[in-house]
Amino acid sequence: MNDAQRHSSEAEGSTAFLTDMYELTMLDAAIKDGTAERDCIFEVFGRRLPNERRYGVVAGTERVLDAITKFRFTEDQLATADFLSPQCREYLANYRFSGQVDGYREGELYFPYSPIMTVRGTFAECVILETVILSILNSDSAVASAASRMVSAADGRPIIEMGSRRTNEQAAVASARATYIAGFNATSNMEASLRYGIPPSGTAAHSWTLLHVDDQGQPDEKAAFKAQIASLGLDTTLLVDTFDITKGVDNALEVAGTELGAVRIDSGDLGIVSRRVRKQLDAAGAFNTRIIVSSDLDEFAIAGLRGDPVDGFGVGTSVVTGSGAPTAGLVYKLVEVEGHAVAKRSSGKVTYGGGKSALRAYRSSGVAVAEIVHPLGADIRRKPNLEYREMTVPLIRDGEIVDNQPSIEEIRELHATARGTLPWEGLALSRGEVAIPTKFIGFPEPE
Amino acid sequence: MNDAQRHSSEAEGSTAFLTDMYELTMLDAAIKDGTAERDCIFEVFGRRLPNERRYGVVAGTERVLDAITKFRFTEDQLATADFLSPQCREYLANYRFSGQVDGYREGELYFPYSPIMTVRGTFAECVILETVILSILNSDSAVASAASRMVSAADGRPIIEMGSRRTNEQAAVASARATYIAGFNATSNMEASLRYGIPPSGTAAHSWTLLHVDDQGQPDEKAAFKAQIASLGLDTTLLVDTFDITKGVDNALEVAGTELGAVRIDSGDLGIVSRRVRKQLDAAGAFNTRIIVSSDLDEFAIAGLRGDPVDGFGVGTSVVTGSGAPTAGLVYKLVEVEGHAVAKRSSGKVTYGGGKSALRAYRSSGVAVAEIVHPLGADIRRKPNLEYREMTVPLIRDGEIVDNQPSIEEIRELHATARGTLPWEGLALSRGEVAIPTKFIGFPEPE
Repeated sequence: MNDAQRHSSEAEGSTAFLTDMYELTMLDAAIKDGTAERDCIFEVFGRRLPNERRYGVVAGTERVLDAITKFRFTEDQLATADFLSPQCREYLANYRFSGQVDGYREGELYFPYSPIMTVRGTFAECVILETVILSILNSDSAVASAASRMVSAADGRPIIEMGSRRTNEQAAVASARATYIAGFNATSNMEASLRYGIPPSGTAAHSWTLLHVDDQGQPDEKAAFKAQIASLGLDTTLLVDTFDITKGVDNALEVAGTELGAVRIDSGDLGIVSRRVRKQLDAAGAFNTRIIVSSDLDEFAIAGLRGDPVDGFGVGTSVVTGSGAPTAGLVYKLVEVEGHAVAKRSSGKVTYGGGKSALRAYRSSGVAVAEIVHPLGADIRRKPNLEYREMTVPLIRDGEIVDNQPSIEEIRELHATARGTLPWEGLALSRGEVAIPTKFIGFPEPE
Repeated sequence: MNDAQRHSSEAEGSTAFLTDMYELTMLDAAIKDGTAERDCIFEVFGRRLPNERRYGVVAGTERVLDAITKFRFTEDQLATADFLSPQCREYLANYRFSGQVDGYREGELYFPYSPIMTVRGTFAECVILETVILSILNSDSAVASAASRMVSAADGRPIIEMGSRRTNEQAAVASARATYIAGFNATSNMEASLRYGIPPSGTAAHSWTLLHVDDQGQPDEKAAFKAQIASLGLDTTLLVDTFDITKGVDNALEVAGTELGAVRIDSGDLGIVSRRVRKQLDAAGAFNTRIIVSSDLDEFAIAGLRGDPVDGFGVGTSVVTGSGAPTAGLVYKLVEVEGHAVAKRSSGKVTYGGGKSALRAYRSSGVAVAEIVHPLGADIRRKPNLEYREMTVPLIRDGEIVDNQPSIEEIRELHATARGTLPWEGLALSRGEVAIPTKFIGFPEPE
């Protein structure tokens, strides 16, 4: 460990250096040219959903709010930022966000151009939050969006998140949280269990079976199974594919009897193997012994097992890497300066300027039909045959997190409810149209 | 913030809960059945390179060694692990790794089955390190492996890492480090600069230009450019594509004159646009003004710009997400118990058991020809016409990090040297054969 590490910001709980250098140099230039105190609105949104998915899931909101309140510069950080003017460093030394944040509730669905989060305040106080806000929302939403599709594919069967080893060690903790919000049932990650109260879960590794060799170094799978049951009870899950699955199931039944909780299969064609193992278990009378499968499962593989006797899934790599979309592609754009709508006009990236709110419109049956994006504070004419829900809620007021933030269980519940309002085609796993259209109401046409 | 968060392990600097539950329950069962103290060897390796790449890059080693020394259980963690026996929790309360770690130097190339890291000790002390070791090596190596291909494609032109916003906020810091090891020249990430001494870098965002509206809300790009130059000097990089690139370059030249450091283009067909902008700059006499490009660049896009007048690249999303391979697919497998080689025998995943070391063989010209994997401690017959280098070096001895660990600059240098020994086809960006074959020498054939 070097000195720099000892002085890292992490130890002091500061999030202020999870930031790109250009935010600080822009701030410095703005302080010098007098634009730093201009009233601004920044907006977080995505221009499209990755991989032609039908919906995205907002995740990370609570972590963003926490990061904003911890956005305080330490002495080491200020010393490192020696490329800034003394005025700028003094500004940073006293920095605390005092503006307003509004946005979608965590767990909500989002669509292209949904104004997921809106940050209002001076240019100075808003611009330097860009990176940390996007880091959290992009990574957590990517994981939750993938996880939600898997939950939908699993059709009520439980999924354990076990992907920690496939992603950065801290990203693993946040990912476990994101998958739980999206409807996963448990996580293997102990820190996520401690920090967020997510139920921990686990089975055993192949190393457990391999550890049990006799004096000649010959494998003894039954010894491994016996020891696991002795420690964890009959309701445990035995991993049966270290050597030969059929023999492994035989050994499991011999050791545990028909009251064994579950077996896990981590290799092979899981459809074929699960059917064969089910027959084997049933033939032995182990009708209640569950079959848990893992091994490179994603939403498509899970859906492919819908007709097979699988009682639960362990999902790792694919969910923590967003199943082909490891980042949500959300951006943080300046949309309003001193009351004037502003927007970048490079071709292909035209966006509506101005602060925004959103409503979601539903049929009386409860099925969502459109995302209505409108200018902040505008009164939108509502159609009498539709029902509307305000998507945009206050999150931070004058720098303080608004009271009554939802618990992780409430977020999870909200997500399940929201997913239940999608039209059927919105749940399709295939590439295709977004589940509901985004409509802009009350904006001038862009030039 | 809830109580669980306040008590999170992060605040105490412990890495012990970046761990899967099953490691703890296996430990508990092993303590009860008397196998916990068996001498074991675990090995980190990858069965294949993702996306048919030609080589991988080992990254994260220093972070792993640091994580092992910080693997100490806190009171909160032990209280959370209430599913464990009192003996097991007492073991954890006193835990410190006292074994041996050997492995590839950080920055080295690796190939399928290269024994990147070998952990020796009791089953108890080794098994619980699995997740944190893999999390770090899988994520850092994925990023470094992608980054190295980009550096190779850039052919000497500098690359700035600017992907923090596209990945978890802590993964962003580790990713910046991994890209620097692989040859990137700078990072936008301030924490990475503070923690690891990586040169920070940055330009300006579109929000900077958009901030500069006049009283009527009309854009004033020149005001933005003037303020940036006033603050950062003429050598700064002006972002010229907020409205219209040709007009943006005109405005930049009008404000800065021909001594402007650089312009950045973040949209459009970068080949066409860079050629047009180069002509525009040259026609104005700004021969030394550099052109920096960004906008969804990956190794293929960078290579595609080889003939274009691009002086530097800003790379974000693709590198921090491993450019299509967000995890390296490394595994941590038990290979030896009490001197007996062990291996899982599920089909398709056959591996050689036993502790291993590796040599890399080179022609006298310095070009690598093979990865030689052999049993740990075995004396391998060397061919007289080849030169050999020991790939496996001691990293931890009796729980202590071996002295003289390389600095990040030394790691970066080592990587550049190693990449220089690849045969030409090993640098190809296309899918194909691994650059050099892995040969197993001195092992019995697997059954």
